[in-house]
Amino acid sequence: MNAPINFETEPSRYRHLKLETDGGRARIILKVDETGGLRPGYLLKLNSYDLAVDIELADAINRLRFEHPGVSVVTLTSATEGTFCAGANIFMLATSDHSFKVNFCKFTNETRLAMEDASANSGQRYIAALNGITSGGGYELALACEEIILVDDRRSAVSLPEIPYLGVLPGTGGLTRLVDKRRVRRDLADVFVTLAEGVRGEKAVQWRLADSTFPPSQFAEAVTKRVESLVDVERISRAGIKLDALSPAESENEIRYRHLTLKLDHARRLAEFIIEGPLEVSDIPESGAALGADWYPLRLFREIDDALLRLRFNYPEIGLVLMRAHGDLGRVLALDRQLRDRNRDWFVRETMLLLKRVLKRLDLTAKSFFALVEEGSCFGGFMLELALAADRIYMKSHDGVQIATSPLNGGALPMSNGLSRLETRFLHRPEHARRLAAENYFDPDAALEAGLVTGAPDELDWEEEIRLAADERLSLSPDALTGMEASLRFAGPETMETKIFARLSAWQNWVFQRPNAVGERGALKLYGRPESPQFDWKRT
Amino acid sequence: MNAPINFETEPSRYRHLKLETDGGRARIILKVDETGGLRPGYLLKLNSYDLAVDIELADAINRLRFEHPGVSVVTLTSATEGTFCAGANIFMLATSDHSFKVNFCKFTNETRLAMEDASANSGQRYIAALNGITSGGGYELALACEEIILVDDRRSAVSLPEIPYLGVLPGTGGLTRLVDKRRVRRDLADVFVTLAEGVRGEKAVQWRLADSTFPPSQFAEAVTKRVESLVDVERISRAGIKLDALSPAESENEIRYRHLTLKLDHARRLAEFIIEGPLEVSDIPESGAALGADWYPLRLFREIDDALLRLRFNYPEIGLVLMRAHGDLGRVLALDRQLRDRNRDWFVRETMLLLKRVLKRLDLTAKSFFALVEEGSCFGGFMLELALAADRIYMKSHDGVQIATSPLNGGALPMSNGLSRLETRFLHRPEHARRLAAENYFDPDAALEAGLVTGAPDELDWEEEIRLAADERLSLSPDALTGMEASLRFAGPETMETKIFARLSAWQNWVFQRPNAVGERGALKLYGRPESPQFDWKRT
Repeated sequence: MNAPINFETEPSRYRHLKLETDGGRARIILKVDETGGLRPGYLLKLNSYDLAVDIELADAINRLRFEHPGVSVVTLTSATEGTFCAGANIFMLATSDHSFKVNFCKFTNETRLAMEDASANSGQRYIAALNGITSGGGYELALACEEIILVDDRRSAVSLPEIPYLGVLPGTGGLTRLVDKRRVRRDLADVFVTLAEGVRGEKAVQWRLADSTFPPSQFAEAVTKRVESLVDVERISRAGIKLDALSPAESENEIRYRHLTLKLDHARRLAEFIIEGPLEVSDIPESGAALGADWYPLRLFREIDDALLRLRFNYPEIGLVLMRAHGDLGRVLALDRQLRDRNRDWFVRETMLLLKRVLKRLDLTAKSFFALVEEGSCFGGFMLELALAADRIYMKSHDGVQIATSPLNGGALPMSNGLSRLETRFLHRPEHARRLAAENYFDPDAALEAGLVTGAPDELDWEEEIRLAADERLSLSPDALTGMEASLRFAGPETMETKIFARLSAWQNWVFQRPNAVGERGALKLYGRPESPQFDWKRT
Repeated sequence: MNAPINFETEPSRYRHLKLETDGGRARIILKVDETGGLRPGYLLKLNSYDLAVDIELADAINRLRFEHPGVSVVTLTSATEGTFCAGANIFMLATSDHSFKVNFCKFTNETRLAMEDASANSGQRYIAALNGITSGGGYELALACEEIILVDDRRSAVSLPEIPYLGVLPGTGGLTRLVDKRRVRRDLADVFVTLAEGVRGEKAVQWRLADSTFPPSQFAEAVTKRVESLVDVERISRAGIKLDALSPAESENEIRYRHLTLKLDHARRLAEFIIEGPLEVSDIPESGAALGADWYPLRLFREIDDALLRLRFNYPEIGLVLMRAHGDLGRVLALDRQLRDRNRDWFVRETMLLLKRVLKRLDLTAKSFFALVEEGSCFGGFMLELALAADRIYMKSHDGVQIATSPLNGGALPMSNGLSRLETRFLHRPEHARRLAAENYFDPDAALEAGLVTGAPDELDWEEEIRLAADERLSLSPDALTGMEASLRFAGPETMETKIFARLSAWQNWVFQRPNAVGERGALKLYGRPESPQFDWKRT
């Protein structure tokens, strides 16, 4: 087994990119350290990336929101001569196992979506300033920006050469963003993604692959001008907070954060999330930011986010996560009211947006989740969303056991499909979903009656029933569960975001295990070698 | 290679089901002949099905529309004691190659959707009368009906046991229909599909898995009563037409129908659709049905449908289909006007619905399609949809070469995503898509300008350019092309139908090639044997 991956970093430790801020502007400058990959065995040439680079990018995007809230325009560009970004490193992909590849793509997709979320919901708009060759995942990174400015120097093309060169898909949202976000005509998209050399200059603009193009002599000025026109001067004065390191205490069977303990039973392939509720709720100061990174909801959900990533990458064999939350339900609802009442404060709003993204990460995690509601549980309001994101909710039939709903369950924390978790759950009863989104406490009978929980075993049967349900789940095919959960969790409408994870990623995962890509004579395996791939030509 | 599969049949040749009609009612009665499978090596016990059964079902559904238009309620039931249907035959699945499995699932999905299309658009409503055990694909068949009536005899459960028994998904739309069509709560769906024994009686109704349940003593009467309440007496008198056999002339390199010739260049893995336009257009008689099965649009699209199925199953290595249509464009538009003007005639409407389904089958075929527009081409109106369904359209820059649009391109033949092909193509210019849906002729320059064609090579370069484009396409990874086309063809909204083929089928295709299912110790491979499957537990 490889060394466990650590997802925590901060700008002073970045090896692959530089984060610069200047009043309302920020720049994320790619200059990938060739030798700074996560594993030995490949060089990150031409600003190609592996997970190490993407961890820094995800960190930068998140810090910009909390630490630099005055920023309203983020330019993504490169400091590597002649190259913007060559995409995911192919030798890294070719030497990674299937499970890693799939989780890597999922994380990069989530990071791209975080950029779009910042553009759409935090007023931090991303501009891609493509000052060199932009291919594969590099162009997918650009596609995740609100605007693409391309240098017209007769050599800097944008391209998605995965299909002709590697026999795999541009899997970080590229195909979906082409036709759904940028609305490139399908036949032009078809030509573009089969054309290894890509498209340059004016033609890229005509095909809607870029928004504007400028010769090298005018490029920097054009980008600056565009950035200046977008800066929101009103927010420049906002002072950020410092996101401190989570630095959990790790042992073989436990990762202990401040509010969350992740327990690992490797033999059973079972994990537990044990959440401690808030110990106190203080009033929100006039400026919410004064609460800082210690504010309970922010800290807890940052911990959950980190734990989910570790679970995905470092503990691939864990199949089921039991979620428990112990604490005072009244205090949780008091916090919940603060989140609602103070939602015009940038810091409170950013915290809510982070909660939303973490909950989506949970929805998209290929592990089963069962929420367990027992004596002293505090699943209420925003914390009830954790349970609603689970595949099943079991509630002990016992005096005093309660869950609570709040107006926040009505749509402030939407799923990728655009609906609240209540709306998705009660797709057949939208009126019921609406009525439930109010402050209300439910005992086991009422929760069962309202359809909020899956089962409410008697106190005497509780332990046995949970053990049986867990054992049964852990006996099932992990692949079938992945496909099943991906289908059952996202009832209702599809969005660009769900299309990326369903239509595109599912196909990419399929392609990624086909001999035509990864077999001894597969295209991905043979990349960079003189032999031509040999395909089984059957179309399926 | 196996013997080529023939998709033509008719009721007198059915081995697995009986089609009974009685005034406004019809019954499709399953009684699968155990020894009537398509290949040797498995027995179709307990009304389990293979492609042979589904070919009969698809035929029955289509004939009911054209031959029995007076029917308004179709009951689907079983004549096999104690069993409605056990789903797709597992030994057939376990011994089929990946490409066949995927194409089989796609065809069964299309057949289920054809039932739903008949319920929604032809006024032929399907009722599942589940008079025995209903599992796996058997329940997916029921899910495709408008209504499910289940016998409550303490043993007849509905179930989707694929995940616990086989380590694969219920892949014929089941998971999607559970949460999206029937809007079963996601956690109950989660319990249901992991519960091998399924759910019976009242509980099935409470969980929304069935609409009603009756004890054996009342079951037949309840079904009859329900059927009678739905019969539309006004249409009983409609007289149908006979769908004659297409019976094409087949040789190794050619399948010749009346209006369509399918040419096969096996060495290049290239096929050609050569369509001959209508030779004459007669006035539509007062009753459209008098035109009969010889009516050009009906006959042509039945031929295309048959050719697509043969291409998928019998010629898996064919990667690219070039489509040509020779004939009089004016006559095509005259037919097109008839289709529009007479759309209140049941026969004309059924023909349009068939065109719609065939075009969807084309959209969903995992082969590349290029349409070629040359001198004497007749891609206009409903026939232009064939070109618009193609991945690319090449038009020869030459005097007199034309294509034509018509109001029918405006939404009468929608794709699975609910949009017209013009709307999907011009997702960024909805106004332009609307304007194009009128009767208009386009020469190559105008077609290029309007974005209707991908390229318009000069007469001198035409042959060479088409050859190069074809060769390039045929050199690419067939898997990457499948994933790419599935992503680029369906821009815009998703529907239950597209979710089935994208979210569900893509995952099923993935599961179907994982060692956990099909490896020597995989669950699908070991089904029915005493050994337990051995899983690689990594969750991806």
